[in-house]
Amino acid sequence: MQRFVNDPDYVVEDMLKGFVKAHGDLIVRSETNDRVVQYINAPVEGKVGLVTGGGSGHEPAFLGYVGKNMMDAVAVGEVFSSPSAQAFYDAFMAVDSGKGVACLFGNYAGDNMNVKMAIRKAKKQGVTVKYVTANDDVASSPKETKEKRHGIAGGVFMWKIGGARAALGGDLDEVIASAQKAVDNTRSICVGLEPCAIPAVGHPNFEIADGDMEFGIGHHGEPGINVQKLEPAKDIARKMAKTVIDDMEPEKGSEVAVLVSGLGATPVMELYILYDEIEAYLKEQGLSVYKVLIGDYVTSLDMNGAALTVMKLDDELKELLDYEAESPGIEV
Amino acid sequence: MQRFVNDPDYVVEDMLKGFVKAHGDLIVRSETNDRVVQYINAPVEGKVGLVTGGGSGHEPAFLGYVGKNMMDAVAVGEVFSSPSAQAFYDAFMAVDSGKGVACLFGNYAGDNMNVKMAIRKAKKQGVTVKYVTANDDVASSPKETKEKRHGIAGGVFMWKIGGARAALGGDLDEVIASAQKAVDNTRSICVGLEPCAIPAVGHPNFEIADGDMEFGIGHHGEPGINVQKLEPAKDIARKMAKTVIDDMEPEKGSEVAVLVSGLGATPVMELYILYDEIEAYLKEQGLSVYKVLIGDYVTSLDMNGAALTVMKLDDELKELLDYEAESPGIEV
Repeated sequence: MQRFVNDPDYVVEDMLKGFVKAHGDLIVRSETNDRVVQYINAPVEGKVGLVTGGGSGHEPAFLGYVGKNMMDAVAVGEVFSSPSAQAFYDAFMAVDSGKGVACLFGNYAGDNMNVKMAIRKAKKQGVTVKYVTANDDVASSPKETKEKRHGIAGGVFMWKIGGARAALGGDLDEVIASAQKAVDNTRSICVGLEPCAIPAVGHPNFEIADGDMEFGIGHHGEPGINVQKLEPAKDIARKMAKTVIDDMEPEKGSEVAVLVSGLGATPVMELYILYDEIEAYLKEQGLSVYKVLIGDYVTSLDMNGAALTVMKLDDELKELLDYEAESPGIEV
Repeated sequence: MQRFVNDPDYVVEDMLKGFVKAHGDLIVRSETNDRVVQYINAPVEGKVGLVTGGGSGHEPAFLGYVGKNMMDAVAVGEVFSSPSAQAFYDAFMAVDSGKGVACLFGNYAGDNMNVKMAIRKAKKQGVTVKYVTANDDVASSPKETKEKRHGIAGGVFMWKIGGARAALGGDLDEVIASAQKAVDNTRSICVGLEPCAIPAVGHPNFEIADGDMEFGIGHHGEPGINVQKLEPAKDIARKMAKTVIDDMEPEKGSEVAVLVSGLGATPVMELYILYDEIEAYLKEQGLSVYKVLIGDYVTSLDMNGAALTVMKLDDELKELLDYEAESPGIEV
């Protein structure tokens, strides 16, 4: 395993130490729970508190989206594992300024269970927590059961939108409504070319044969829509964009925000090669691209692959997307 | 080859098309030379023009450092190949507003030759071009022949500093002096864990055996200081930091800026694991970290590895480093 690690069982701890050192101007580790990282100014007086959380291995997600006008705290899990209910609870308590807390997370079974336990516990302390789950991964469940879909890179838009609404003084219900609108308007699809290996396991937890690709793969290697022969980038990009747009069914003339994220081991050059054809397809569909983000936004350890995320915009979402923000993962 | 490419012979063209589409708010392809990308407002009236250039495959370098208060244009080469003299010349002419042009590039043989040819040609047109070459890669030549060293990720600091000095109204000699100071104060070292493959070649152009690492490897796979057994991240990070600091010999109490760049296929998590120990070593040496950048800043296609860059700061460099800038590769 050709990796920069110390003890493979402690990669999360080692990563966390480096992360808070690197971004100490914005974030700090909680004094009460070493699996909680919070904005240095949290709780922000008079503002709804914002929390996210999820397994590690997706850096800069989730902790990289903590910052000014973004998340106020994050619960950090082990690699590809949910944070504990206690971590979510401690994150809630760390960010509540009396205005309540919005928890914006990714709709995985462990996260769902632990967030709900933490919400009940917070309620007993008089802290109201409401939540939104991202469900942008169109490959993870059919459209009829969209609520079962997982959140992948679309979380970035949910966090940005929710963070801006809270910063603008929105109350808890308004923050939840804006974040939910971002989720409702967002779709993603992933393509995997080479698998990832959890450091403590030491070998890939699934396989993609040379010359194949997995279309619709999940962020932890969950089976996708199909395994097929690797195609030219143009054809892959077109298929990704078509899958997302067919599911979204945006009106012609709509403006969209586009995010192309590498999955960890994907060369930057190739993300741009994909984007060339993604943009061409969107334009053919009568859509115009308002904003583009390209780079490593939500990764999967050392997976070689890419995720396309598209959010359909309206005036509210455009204003919130453009609102000033500062975090390690995104800056506006 | 598990890659997102169309025709491997046209990856630069395909990447360029995607790049200018994604960042069309900041950059545009030149109308006279399709291997020149320029800032949308170039030439900026009354400002020294700034040009860089180099081979492709290092994305977001070099073209990602064109933007507001950064480079005004870039000459784009084929993968790992110098741009043509004509491309450098056209970039010079595109950015000159009568105040002269500073060319800030990476000290590779082909670039050196072509930049100098382009400078002579520009001179005949009455355009003065002066240049600075980054030479931060301590592994590429002994200290006694520092001027022969290659520029790697240290270019990012040179561009940021030169760009800010020009934006603040510096004349050509002042821009050159500030960029040269950045170079003089900057050192880098790379470690490779897995090689990269030029798409048109289709297989790695060098080898690193499983269980080995190449300490001091160049950005195109140039042989490093040695090939040795892969060590824990802590030991690698410490050795990288020691190599850079021993060569730099900063006074105790100095402030430094630190850049840890992935080389293309390096998981984000691991850059933070490295940074934890890099910071610890710098602190032990009596240095304090003023600013940190971590991510894919200068890559080498799909190489798995990391580069550490350190710049020793003074008041001038701190002011210029913090000065507002907007480019795809860096934003302040």
